[in-house]
Amino acid sequence: MAIITLTTDFGLKDGNVAIMKGVIWQINPAVQIVDLSHLVEPYNVLEASLILFHAAFDFPDNTIHVIVVDPGVGTNRRPIAAKIGSQFFVCPDNGILTQIANKAKKCQLPVDCFHLTDTRYWLPTISHVFHGRDIFAPVAAHLASNIEISMLGVPIHDFIKLEVPAPRKTSHGWRGRVIYIDNFGNIATNLFPEHIEARTTAVFRANNLEIKGMVHTFGDNKNGELIALFGGPGNVIFSIVNGNAALQSGIAIGDEIEVVSE
Amino acid sequence: MAIITLTTDFGLKDGNVAIMKGVIWQINPAVQIVDLSHLVEPYNVLEASLILFHAAFDFPDNTIHVIVVDPGVGTNRRPIAAKIGSQFFVCPDNGILTQIANKAKKCQLPVDCFHLTDTRYWLPTISHVFHGRDIFAPVAAHLASNIEISMLGVPIHDFIKLEVPAPRKTSHGWRGRVIYIDNFGNIATNLFPEHIEARTTAVFRANNLEIKGMVHTFGDNKNGELIALFGGPGNVIFSIVNGNAALQSGIAIGDEIEVVSE
Amino acid sequence: MAIITLTTDFGLKDGNVAIMKGVIWQINPAVQIVDLSHLVEPYNVLEASLILFHAAFDFPDNTIHVIVVDPGVGTNRRPIAAKIGSQFFVCPDNGILTQIANKAKKCQLPVDCFHLTDTRYWLPTISHVFHGRDIFAPVAAHLASNIEISMLGVPIHDFIKLEVPAPRKTSHGWRGRVIYIDNFGNIATNLFPEHIEARTTAVFRANNLEIKGMVHTFGDNKNGELIALFGGPGNVIFSIVNGNAALQSGIAIGDEIEVVSE
Repeated sequence: MAIITLTTDFGLKDGNVAIMKGVIWQINPAVQIVDLSHLVEPYNVLEASLILFHAAFDFPDNTIHVIVVDPGVGTNRRPIAAKIGSQFFVCPDNGILTQIANKAKKCQLPVDCFHLTDTRYWLPTISHVFHGRDIFAPVAAHLASNIEISMLGVPIHDFIKLEVPAPRKTSHGWRGRVIYIDNFGNIATNLFPEHIEARTTAVFRANNLEIKGMVHTFGDNKNGELIALFGGPGNVIFSIVNGNAALQSGIAIGDEIEVVSE
Repeated sequence: MAIITLTTDFGLKDGNVAIMKGVIWQINPAVQIVDLSHLVEPYNVLEASLILFHAAFDFPDNTIHVIVVDPGVGTNRRPIAAKIGSQFFVCPDNGILTQIANKAKKCQLPVDCFHLTDTRYWLPTISHVFHGRDIFAPVAAHLASNIEISMLGVPIHDFIKLEVPAPRKTSHGWRGRVIYIDNFGNIATNLFPEHIEARTTAVFRANNLEIKGMVHTFGDNKNGELIALFGGPGNVIFSIVNGNAALQSGIAIGDEIEVVSE
Repeated sequence: MAIITLTTDFGLKDGNVAIMKGVIWQINPAVQIVDLSHLVEPYNVLEASLILFHAAFDFPDNTIHVIVVDPGVGTNRRPIAAKIGSQFFVCPDNGILTQIANKAKKCQLPVDCFHLTDTRYWLPTISHVFHGRDIFAPVAAHLASNIEISMLGVPIHDFIKLEVPAPRKTSHGWRGRVIYIDNFGNIATNLFPEHIEARTTAVFRANNLEIKGMVHTFGDNKNGELIALFGGPGNVIFSIVNGNAALQSGIAIGDEIEVVSE
């Protein structure tokens, strides 16, 4: 059974997520639909790209990921569909695939991207305000019905990638950034193992705070202590055991993080 | 595969939504269950009726919509099931079907409504406090198992419709109301194309603010600008591009909106 | 079709719930996955145990309940799987099954519990920070594929049960506690019918408030009135008709409740 995931900034109250599901099932009643996240900050394409990136490749091959964070809905930004590695993506061309494309480049995954132009795979009437319902949901449903992605439009090679802040080399180490705060208040950075000389000697500085060394896991430490460790996606995170590191430290998205080896 | 949608004011924490799903699957394990919304304001039947109305007819024929916003649970308000046009509805008789019934009248959809009286299709024990679990979920599961709706109880013609505020004609135009604020802060009114003489000359006034003319879509405008356009369900909405119109304008549900042509 | 329910403290934004679903479907694409709750207060094992307990036995036989509220992830706390009565449970051994185990004892349900030790049923690589993805999701998917629970590890009899506050006998009645506040602000206590001499003569005291007598259901009363009744799981709850009892009374989780007969 084909799987479609949905990622939006629609929230969970208004029923717009359900509308997209209804439209999909009208075209293909056998598809399994799953919510990836609907709590993306409104219009925050970069946040959506990050949440999508963390989850997309944990799905079975040929899963179809629909992402509708679409501040340009109704303008001439392009609707696109892409096959990247084992997964399909259907979304507006506004940078949502940035992190996925970066991974594809790094891991040499094949990328096939199409500008959605064949209106036979859309709803008959297209509004100016809800392309999730009118274009992206029906296109995903047709993909799930084994329509070839190349049937949906014309190949493109210039889909949009956003500038993602990368760590910069300093005289003594690296300077990275906070890129996400999760439900536990864990502070995710864009620092990866390649930026850390050694776990034991790493010293992190942010917001007048200093963390010396990295631990293996949360539970190794005392409650209330600010610690650094490698998180689920492999990057450095700061955490407070049984607490909320972001709230308690005041460190926020965008803040600079310095790491040196001492 | 039959589809059942669930709309409630239960929220997403307590597990009561999951209980309804468990009960449905005990009776019919093959049904596809989907959340329409569980963030209806507690006891707000009119809000539930609006959210339901926006989404219900985007589902495949014979989808079963269960709605449990039920301030009168355990009293003698009637449990009902209705077939309206292509869709089934199972809910307390408290006005939840108001907007659906109005549409049925306008579009001359057939309406068949039944007072649920046959307790064979309920759970064996009925509590005073959770008819979503005890009556509405099992009835929906039996409907999904192809039990005829007429088996579930006795036909009625007087199910409850709430007073929905309609726009009033003024000397120069119409006076409508704000009926909903969505996740983006878009302000939805009860003004439809029939109340607008011409897009270009329409002037809206609310809360000491004035909007001149209507645009086609969000992206046509500058960030931060308050605009008027037709929303997903076809009514006039006010929006701030990449902002939150409700928060930034102070316009709230129930506020009056005047439209004239200048 | 096998059913897996998920209960976590992951929230609904970060995509970690979707990751668990992706992992499950990679192993068993035919499983039906349903969210029980993801809004458990972070690290609150006792709250998770209560939400789970209320919903678990409303599911079809052989439903698999995965619970990941796991402050000790990555430490040497054991991962476990249990068959208790008609239901399967997969979770860390930290007390999450407390209420279920208490019910099993009371109702003499059979209990079979296993320490998950056979890594063939886990993901190939185990992180220190996300055992929901690496251990619990794959084990549940294998259980759903009819792997015998006894294959997953070694039998244990000492899985952890938390101390649950029980009502104490007083000279005139019982002293219980508030154990949960639901989405409507209803105040759930640990007082059950066995602690109430008679509905009509029961008097409850909490927080300088007094409630005389118990009613049958919400709708029997005037709006705004604080009432006592038996809730969905059978325990005494306090409620305000069309209001929010917790907000309006100030009564909070952990507060003492006295009941006497007058």
